[in-house]
Amino acid sequence: MKKEAQHNSKLKIIPLGGLEQIGMNITAFEYEDSIIVVDCGLSFPEDDMLGIDLVIPDVTYLKDNIDRVKGFFITHGHEDHIGAIPYVLRDINVPIYATKLTIGIIEHKLEEHDMLKKTKRKVVKYGQHINLGCFRVEFIRTNHSIQDAAALAIYSPAGIVVHTGDFKIDYTPVYGDAIDLARFGEIGKKGVLALMCDSTNAERPGFTMSERTVGKTLDNIFADHKNRRIIIATFASNVDRVQQIINSADKFGRKVAIEGRSMVNIISIASQLGYLTLPDNILIDVDQLRSYPDEQTVIITTGSQGESMAALSRMASGIHRKISIKPTDTIVLSSHPIPGNEKSVTGIINELMLKGADVIFQDVHVSGHACQEDIKLIYSLVNPKYCIPVHGEYKHLVAQAKIAEELGYDKDHIKIISSGDVLELDEDSAEVTGKVPVGNILVDGLGVGDVGNIVLRDRQRLAEDGIIVVVLTLESGSGQVLAGPDLVSRGFVYVRNSESLMDEAKSVLEETMDYCMDHNITDWGKIKNEIKDSLGDFVWKETKRRPMIMPIIMEV
Amino acid sequence: MKKEAQHNSKLKIIPLGGLEQIGMNITAFEYEDSIIVVDCGLSFPEDDMLGIDLVIPDVTYLKDNIDRVKGFFITHGHEDHIGAIPYVLRDINVPIYATKLTIGIIEHKLEEHDMLKKTKRKVVKYGQHINLGCFRVEFIRTNHSIQDAAALAIYSPAGIVVHTGDFKIDYTPVYGDAIDLARFGEIGKKGVLALMCDSTNAERPGFTMSERTVGKTLDNIFADHKNRRIIIATFASNVDRVQQIINSADKFGRKVAIEGRSMVNIISIASQLGYLTLPDNILIDVDQLRSYPDEQTVIITTGSQGESMAALSRMASGIHRKISIKPTDTIVLSSHPIPGNEKSVTGIINELMLKGADVIFQDVHVSGHACQEDIKLIYSLVNPKYCIPVHGEYKHLVAQAKIAEELGYDKDHIKIISSGDVLELDEDSAEVTGKVPVGNILVDGLGVGDVGNIVLRDRQRLAEDGIIVVVLTLESGSGQVLAGPDLVSRGFVYVRNSESLMDEAKSVLEETMDYCMDHNITDWGKIKNEIKDSLGDFVWKETKRRPMIMPIIMEV
Repeated sequence: MKKEAQHNSKLKIIPLGGLEQIGMNITAFEYEDSIIVVDCGLSFPEDDMLGIDLVIPDVTYLKDNIDRVKGFFITHGHEDHIGAIPYVLRDINVPIYATKLTIGIIEHKLEEHDMLKKTKRKVVKYGQHINLGCFRVEFIRTNHSIQDAAALAIYSPAGIVVHTGDFKIDYTPVYGDAIDLARFGEIGKKGVLALMCDSTNAERPGFTMSERTVGKTLDNIFADHKNRRIIIATFASNVDRVQQIINSADKFGRKVAIEGRSMVNIISIASQLGYLTLPDNILIDVDQLRSYPDEQTVIITTGSQGESMAALSRMASGIHRKISIKPTDTIVLSSHPIPGNEKSVTGIINELMLKGADVIFQDVHVSGHACQEDIKLIYSLVNPKYCIPVHGEYKHLVAQAKIAEELGYDKDHIKIISSGDVLELDEDSAEVTGKVPVGNILVDGLGVGDVGNIVLRDRQRLAEDGIIVVVLTLESGSGQVLAGPDLVSRGFVYVRNSESLMDEAKSVLEETMDYCMDHNITDWGKIKNEIKDSLGDFVWKETKRRPMIMPIIMEV
Repeated sequence: MKKEAQHNSKLKIIPLGGLEQIGMNITAFEYEDSIIVVDCGLSFPEDDMLGIDLVIPDVTYLKDNIDRVKGFFITHGHEDHIGAIPYVLRDINVPIYATKLTIGIIEHKLEEHDMLKKTKRKVVKYGQHINLGCFRVEFIRTNHSIQDAAALAIYSPAGIVVHTGDFKIDYTPVYGDAIDLARFGEIGKKGVLALMCDSTNAERPGFTMSERTVGKTLDNIFADHKNRRIIIATFASNVDRVQQIINSADKFGRKVAIEGRSMVNIISIASQLGYLTLPDNILIDVDQLRSYPDEQTVIITTGSQGESMAALSRMASGIHRKISIKPTDTIVLSSHPIPGNEKSVTGIINELMLKGADVIFQDVHVSGHACQEDIKLIYSLVNPKYCIPVHGEYKHLVAQAKIAEELGYDKDHIKIISSGDVLELDEDSAEVTGKVPVGNILVDGLGVGDVGNIVLRDRQRLAEDGIIVVVLTLESGSGQVLAGPDLVSRGFVYVRNSESLMDEAKSVLEETMDYCMDHNITDWGKIKNEIKDSLGDFVWKETKRRPMIMPIIMEV
């Protein structure tokens, strides 16, 4: 009887972030009284989120259903999948399940937030199944640009969902084994209700190359630049890339120095956990570089995305305290710019070249995401009833939907859903039946969620044309002007250049105050509006700019 | 005797902009008492130039030598080659020489600035020579992503310099003839002192495809989307592209509506001057669109670079007054994102797809710049003594220098120069012998050059964390606090969410004022510093933010 009742329920898939933008991946799976969550990522601020440090998902839905939330399953250790954990788990303190390296990276993050002791973590092995409420979750080995990535098979009474996480197919990975394609096939044969597959590279034809091919390129670069110092920038979290750089260095008899905080952290975690093999004595401290001839050293550094505060950027602009770029340096960007970073990466390449360095920035990288033919392979192994493209911007989801159509899926079996959508599904149907609240929580300094649209709009306005503050002191009772109006501006025009403009503006304000007195306008709100209007009009006429105008009235 | 004296002089080439950044192309050529200038472009603000509309070159050097400046030669009508003309010619009113369409576009610009009557313009034909002072300048036909582009052969007593302008080699251009390669060869045989060659695509191997290939792609798109409305975004100035869209529309029996101010302007100039052939009655007004079935219309629009105020962007965000995107639209981006615009272009593609439209954005574009093999062809025809890579970021100049090295040029015959460098050259040598003042003049609204580093730094600070204004009124003489300290913030935190924070801040300030009174601190500068320090420390401790703090003291 119980089984039948269960069979009448549907599985709910509720993405709480990540589908309108890159990053902030977090998806709830709900069946009756059980909720499990896959990933808990952050995203980085958009250009119009001025001053914001990072963005985390609004998890009101989980808080409202906290009694039913059983645990978090994390597919891999990238920020867009783990970054919000220290914030979200403050309110929703349930266990985290992930593979060893992923847990290692999460623990480092929890420690920074003083959350380590409060948080239950469980290391899961590939092939292991975790039972939690109505769900059973199996971790399946995949490949990605970070080690220990996993896909998840989520078994629910309504059917099996396969969630790939971010993945690629690498038959010759640098560390560990290739993606467990056979297990995808085996589960596919059981009958899969839905496949949630990575869309990041769904626009790119063909197959993604093996990480190992980069090793060959690196060897060639080392062979061609035997008389030069080599500096290589890459993603800190790509330990396999770091391993291959170290392998090349070892082959060519060079010492390796590590630069950049995140690079040092990840290398220390990865080598402690056995994910990085270090030849004896190959690592040296940056301070020891001067004890070795340049041509016997390699520096591995952060900053391959042109991040303005990262080590490579500081070297490029000549403000790095320990490393100066020389014309005898060969600098390798073993990376590809993430969308939005193209210009800053190019800027750094130009700066490095201006210092005379040789800069290699093309074709020393492979992607960590599956291309079109790889995606087709996963579809053919898993053979799902419903297709739910995930991970990627909207255009990438659409590109994967087109692949699914090519593979013969009916359009109504392909579900492009948005954050907040409640997709209810079972063998008979898959429909969006509702909406839960979702959104961006902005983190600025210590503040989580205290910067909203009004503050951002003000920052935008201040950034465009600055501010003019108008202060005046009125006599209590009579409302007579005792002092001012005084004007002070910032970010508008530099005062020394614009004294006559500010003098004229003062006259305008004096007229405004006379007008207010003559017309018995004594309400402060009304006076402030008169000031804003008259000064705003004057400034626009004279400069075609619209600084923020902020009148302040004091009374004595 | 005169000839010998002349022969002892050298030619000076002085780039006044454009070599550290894309855009703002302007180069002075100087020989004894004669200066001519090639191009006069603007550039668009970098990300850190908050609120700035555009950037023009500092031409102090030309102003200081105004008596010797003979004229401006403009290679083609793109903003980065003509955009600063209305600003620069206010001070340096000499004639402008350019081909017909280029002059047409310049005249439109001069008219907008009310400068048309004051400026002498001269239309030059390909093959024509202009004598000006010691110089003779010949216009040579090239191809580019705008019609009527020219290379210049600059004859000076010290030798001939060939300046390619921006160019590509198109054997089958849409309008007019192919680049006059034979003339490049003929001049090469005379002996060329220096070649200044476009570097934009110097990193790209191979040859650049003909503009005509895009026409075929467009025909295919029209054939595949017969039942849908087609909207095509492209660069307004690429009249050949517009011509090909119109040709496809004509072939498939569609009417064409033009949307976007710059698109309407250029099409009107180009068709008046005979650069655009319009089949009878093919153009309709945007308002007339509703009189035709969707599948019989095409809309050509601006906004292919994701510019936030352009027509396509307004359509994507649903705020265009006349055109609403429908799921039955096919939208074509016939363009490639200019570096820095990738993210906004992608954003618009996502928005259009979210409205259900079909969006085609790959491979409906060819570049207007020569690739590596094209560059080698020009070098082999011109066979210069010295190579001066121009047009492009520094890394592009370096890429062209590498091409020249491959072609067998000695490193000391390849001159990568910077803005402000004075390159003196003749048959015997080419050396940078000096430096003239150069720089960016920022244009913000009506202000030209009144926004400097202090203002930009303030805007940056305001954008990051906002501002807190502290006002207090002191009694004249006694220095007693009569009113305040009051705090008002903008762009910091929204006040309703942070009342207790602001209350605590007020207490901190009251303590600060007590401290000042107790210690007889009456100097306003000192009081202001105390306020900044104590409030700044408090705010940083509580929020980890650094808003600008602006104390204002009034006296009654």
